[in-house]
Amino acid sequence: MRTAAVIGTGLIGTSVALALTRRGVTVYLSDRDESAVRTAASLGAGKIGDPPERVDLAVIAVPPANIAAVLEDAQRRDLATAYTDVASVKAGPLDAALAQGIDQVTYIGGHPLAGREIAGPLGGRDDLFDGRPWVLTPTATTGRDALNRALELISLCGGVPVVMDAADHDHAVALISHAPHVIASIMAARLEHAPEDAARVAGPGVRDVTRIAGGDPALWQEILSANAAAVADVLDEYAADLSSAIIALRALAADDAHKREVGRTNLIDLLRRGNAGQSRIPGKHGAPRAVYSAVPVVISDAPGELARLFAAVGAAGVNIEDVRIEHSPGQAVGLVTLQVAPDSAGQLSARLTERGWTVRS
Amino acid sequence: MRTAAVIGTGLIGTSVALALTRRGVTVYLSDRDESAVRTAASLGAGKIGDPPERVDLAVIAVPPANIAAVLEDAQRRDLATAYTDVASVKAGPLDAALAQGIDQVTYIGGHPLAGREIAGPLGGRDDLFDGRPWVLTPTATTGRDALNRALELISLCGGVPVVMDAADHDHAVALISHAPHVIASIMAARLEHAPEDAARVAGPGVRDVTRIAGGDPALWQEILSANAAAVADVLDEYAADLSSAIIALRALAADDAHKREVGRTNLIDLLRRGNAGQSRIPGKHGAPRAVYSAVPVVISDAPGELARLFAAVGAAGVNIEDVRIEHSPGQAVGLVTLQVAPDSAGQLSARLTERGWTVRS
Repeated sequence: MRTAAVIGTGLIGTSVALALTRRGVTVYLSDRDESAVRTAASLGAGKIGDPPERVDLAVIAVPPANIAAVLEDAQRRDLATAYTDVASVKAGPLDAALAQGIDQVTYIGGHPLAGREIAGPLGGRDDLFDGRPWVLTPTATTGRDALNRALELISLCGGVPVVMDAADHDHAVALISHAPHVIASIMAARLEHAPEDAARVAGPGVRDVTRIAGGDPALWQEILSANAAAVADVLDEYAADLSSAIIALRALAADDAHKREVGRTNLIDLLRRGNAGQSRIPGKHGAPRAVYSAVPVVISDAPGELARLFAAVGAAGVNIEDVRIEHSPGQAVGLVTLQVAPDSAGQLSARLTERGWTVRS
Repeated sequence: MRTAAVIGTGLIGTSVALALTRRGVTVYLSDRDESAVRTAASLGAGKIGDPPERVDLAVIAVPPANIAAVLEDAQRRDLATAYTDVASVKAGPLDAALAQGIDQVTYIGGHPLAGREIAGPLGGRDDLFDGRPWVLTPTATTGRDALNRALELISLCGGVPVVMDAADHDHAVALISHAPHVIASIMAARLEHAPEDAARVAGPGVRDVTRIAGGDPALWQEILSANAAAVADVLDEYAADLSSAIIALRALAADDAHKREVGRTNLIDLLRRGNAGQSRIPGKHGAPRAVYSAVPVVISDAPGELARLFAAVGAAGVNIEDVRIEHSPGQAVGLVTLQVAPDSAGQLSARLTERGWTVRS
């Protein structure tokens, strides 16, 4: 890729332009807001105005509702050999584009899953997409060239391509982003008029669970509206589970022992499914989250005790994934928690116990 | 306080005993699990066995269902001049204790809002309660001495006392901890069988919102069961809001422009209430979360530019709460985001603009 056009110089468009410019691509910037395009250019994102000849790729970074019209116009002007967009919903814009009669061969939908709190071109960063998933939604009609140009774009921006069907994409973001945002807002909203004492005792759990509810209402209203049906479908599923959870808890509050037992079984089943689902979320660095088992070992503060412990672990042939050492000042004993693969925990505990260590099960 | 008895040497009981011992109190430990009490003693939490004479305070750190019986037994043995407990629910144990005919004058319910992933005495830490809220639930009958002994306990443990009615406490923890846990589990559970691609694109939002769903199902089943009715009440409120949100989203997916407008209004109202509720959650360090306004200022990379900017800010008489500087290598301009009190943002922007700075609104 030697040349590109970026249409729409908000946060995402400017970040794409900065990343491409950094990698030596000549980028032409346009936006219906002249101050936005001037700001993007002043940040070094590219040149203002139409390219002198057809570019290798046009990146349409405008709101979902405008994609079809902008794409149709760009294709009519023969702006580029391939076209993509970066909107957070995919099925609606695709349907609208098809209704406009756009050339499907040269267009491929895209969605980089990246963002930050600062909107507009001044929030733009050339590393915004580093290591982040970037979904592409080719159709049966999408040409090989458009697909490869979009893959090259993602590579130049440092993203990780993921190919999906447009409807699957919209359901996926509803599931992992949009519907949780609505739920976080619902939980947070109930704190608005909560007694002062209740807010005072709020801790890290509720802080994490409601963090995303702090997002900009106008922006999120747009995002949710563009994917409304898919989000409502996920919320319907939550509502069914919520209804079951309420029934289980009412049963647990009942006098009847059999009812309580049924409630207990259903509640623990939900909590276990929550464990299973939570473990599927990738870790902070994008890698699948490893689930380790903890082997807590009691140690004394005698010199060389830790070295002796790790020698014993090494002799057991078990790989230590993580370790935490707790030893309060003035205490004669401490606790070393070894994190190991779940299938190694039993073996390690047994070998350490054999060698005289106290393993807390 | 010179002497105390801790009945139940799990995580909380052992941590209380460690904190009291650290502050010079003589602590007597007991637990129906002999290995637990030996472990606690070996960590330096106190002496094993019954005290030789009446202690100043008995801390009952057993599961909610056992509090009434343990309290009644301790009072019958005249173990202490005052009694408290540390259970995470308060109304049920109080009712049970009253039904047992316990002496209400010498007893006060308590709940330190602290915990960690490691259960049992080996998880015990003398600083577990540092800066954490510790709820006390006196009744009209609770004696002054019991209240003051409990306040002294909290002070020695480094906690922050909060006095509440037992029923208010149970509703508060349902609202800020128990009900959010159920909801986090419901959201996480829907990821269990989600397509692999959906899990791959999961980001920090859903990671935070489901983190607490990784908790131990058996432990959380106990916690939720002990406060089942209050949790179900909060979940009923969520269910009503969820139902409204689904209606709003279905309206947004409709063809009718008026319906869409109603949906948009209701959705944005929910998102705004979420903002308002979220801002009431205390920050990481327990202080009320300050909500600042961002004033983003464009700067060039000329020498002394930052010093010049801060001089201008100082001249405007505005207090800077936080600052973030972004300046990508090779770019001629960067962005300095100043965080200030919301009522100062407009004034600061105006003064900086007057002096020739470019403030991005």
